[in-house]
Amino acid sequence: MSFHLTILGTGSANPVVTRNATSHFLMVEQEGYLFDCGEATQTQLIRYKLKATRIKYIFITHLHGDHFFGLIGLLSTLNMHHRLDDLFIYGPKGLSEILTLQMKYSDTRLNFKVHFQETRSEESYLLMENEFVKVTTIPLVHRVSCCGFLIEEKEKPRRIIKGLLPPHISIEQIKCLKEGNDVLDENGEILYSSDFYTTKAPESDSYAFCTDTAYHPDIIPIIKGVKLLYHETTFLHELEERAKETCHSTAFQAGLIAKEAQVGNLLIGHFSSRYKDLTPFINEAKEVFPKSILGEDGLTIDFRDLL
Amino acid sequence: MSFHLTILGTGSANPVVTRNATSHFLMVEQEGYLFDCGEATQTQLIRYKLKATRIKYIFITHLHGDHFFGLIGLLSTLNMHHRLDDLFIYGPKGLSEILTLQMKYSDTRLNFKVHFQETRSEESYLLMENEFVKVTTIPLVHRVSCCGFLIEEKEKPRRIIKGLLPPHISIEQIKCLKEGNDVLDENGEILYSSDFYTTKAPESDSYAFCTDTAYHPDIIPIIKGVKLLYHETTFLHELEERAKETCHSTAFQAGLIAKEAQVGNLLIGHFSSRYKDLTPFINEAKEVFPKSILGEDGLTIDFRDLL
Repeated sequence: MSFHLTILGTGSANPVVTRNATSHFLMVEQEGYLFDCGEATQTQLIRYKLKATRIKYIFITHLHGDHFFGLIGLLSTLNMHHRLDDLFIYGPKGLSEILTLQMKYSDTRLNFKVHFQETRSEESYLLMENEFVKVTTIPLVHRVSCCGFLIEEKEKPRRIIKGLLPPHISIEQIKCLKEGNDVLDENGEILYSSDFYTTKAPESDSYAFCTDTAYHPDIIPIIKGVKLLYHETTFLHELEERAKETCHSTAFQAGLIAKEAQVGNLLIGHFSSRYKDLTPFINEAKEVFPKSILGEDGLTIDFRDLL
Repeated sequence: MSFHLTILGTGSANPVVTRNATSHFLMVEQEGYLFDCGEATQTQLIRYKLKATRIKYIFITHLHGDHFFGLIGLLSTLNMHHRLDDLFIYGPKGLSEILTLQMKYSDTRLNFKVHFQETRSEESYLLMENEFVKVTTIPLVHRVSCCGFLIEEKEKPRRIIKGLLPPHISIEQIKCLKEGNDVLDENGEILYSSDFYTTKAPESDSYAFCTDTAYHPDIIPIIKGVKLLYHETTFLHELEERAKETCHSTAFQAGLIAKEAQVGNLLIGHFSSRYKDLTPFINEAKEVFPKSILGEDGLTIDFRDLL
């Protein structure tokens, strides 16, 4: 298992043809996690041949249109496609009310159950967890209540070195070894997990989704050491003042956060429509934090490839 | 002056990459009339280099998502672009409530005034008029309350034949002649409007926007003789039963309506996502009504070119 991410949109509030509004699609163990859902996200899913039916969890950072106007359309389409599986939505106060009202007037009754959980943005807390991952909120600073999300793979079991196991070992004993515990064999000999029969588990994946936000170093302890940090970069640093006024960040500031938080890699996006050429963004971020990646619509990142 | 139409989307409820959701943009005397506003309509306006700022009137047929989910995004963007001009929106009960709720939670206060008028779909009535056009509703048959719109250019003034006018004729007298009235010149001679100094006004333009609807011949008297009829054709006639169940029409049925209503031309669209090749649609419509036009995203129609 590893995380597999597709960027569905790298635009910001003002729409442009070449960059869709924000949405990131993360696959973990055949289950889809959607972060934000700007207008036409459902079309982007089709464009990049991703299965919307796989989406099980949807996280909405805040209620500015370029982050959630596509959600009602996506839900309607999932319903039209006869989805039956439960869907889990995490988002700010008001989101559930907006969706409910639209469904009322369009006479839409969902065939599937939606578990809606309202988010708070005052403090970081564990939002959800399942067998594979846990998701923690990241309070951000924006013009409306806004929180990002940190999704972390749970610790992976150690890997068994096949061929070295003695005969007659039970499945229960193998499970113990993978969990790092030693076991006794049928002769009363100790089989050591760490020394012989298993190797260390591969590093767990983790992804932090931080948008929209002013430069806000308070998030650093929360995202410390994350494998991939997505941080919005609406402006270049020459417009630092404009970034401050509108509660957005510059590429330089995203680089600073990445550096201070010692993250593995930085991914940037949410570019203002005023910029056509994005080269200055990646150059600016790399000056501070060399392991920066320029977001673009349709870009895919297999976390196994991240250095 | 003439009508100038751009098709922004020819898709139906199930999204496809090649056909956006429904929206038609009509320009009349430098003012834009938008009919329906499916998701990502604002991006289509940019793609086809149309000025969203020109939009003064928006007409929404019904509250199924592929006809209005793009409206809130369009309004937000107009606001972000500092629009100050009044906007007139005509749509069903519930639309205003939905827009208001979304603006509340996204902390959006519009800089411009929106005049919202709720439509009724039980009977045909005059919905609005201005200096140039009048718009009448067309009750349609769909799964939710739905009405189409007939927009008719007001009678144009006669055209003055320049060079033939006597000297010393006043602007007031020219206006009388254009309106078809005879006037007395300074010598007490009658200047005849129709016989000499003017020619007949060009035919007024008219456009009927009929979507979504089951086959419904009751609309024929309302749209009789319209220069261009847009009629939805979600299915081919081989799926007539499916069309009936879902309150949509087939290309054959749209052709029948066009023929019976003796319209000038028929434009078809709102194609089900199951169809990739649309040739069978235009063939089917043309079998009944030869002057049929296949809708496609980005198609423009100058009404002066319609035969």
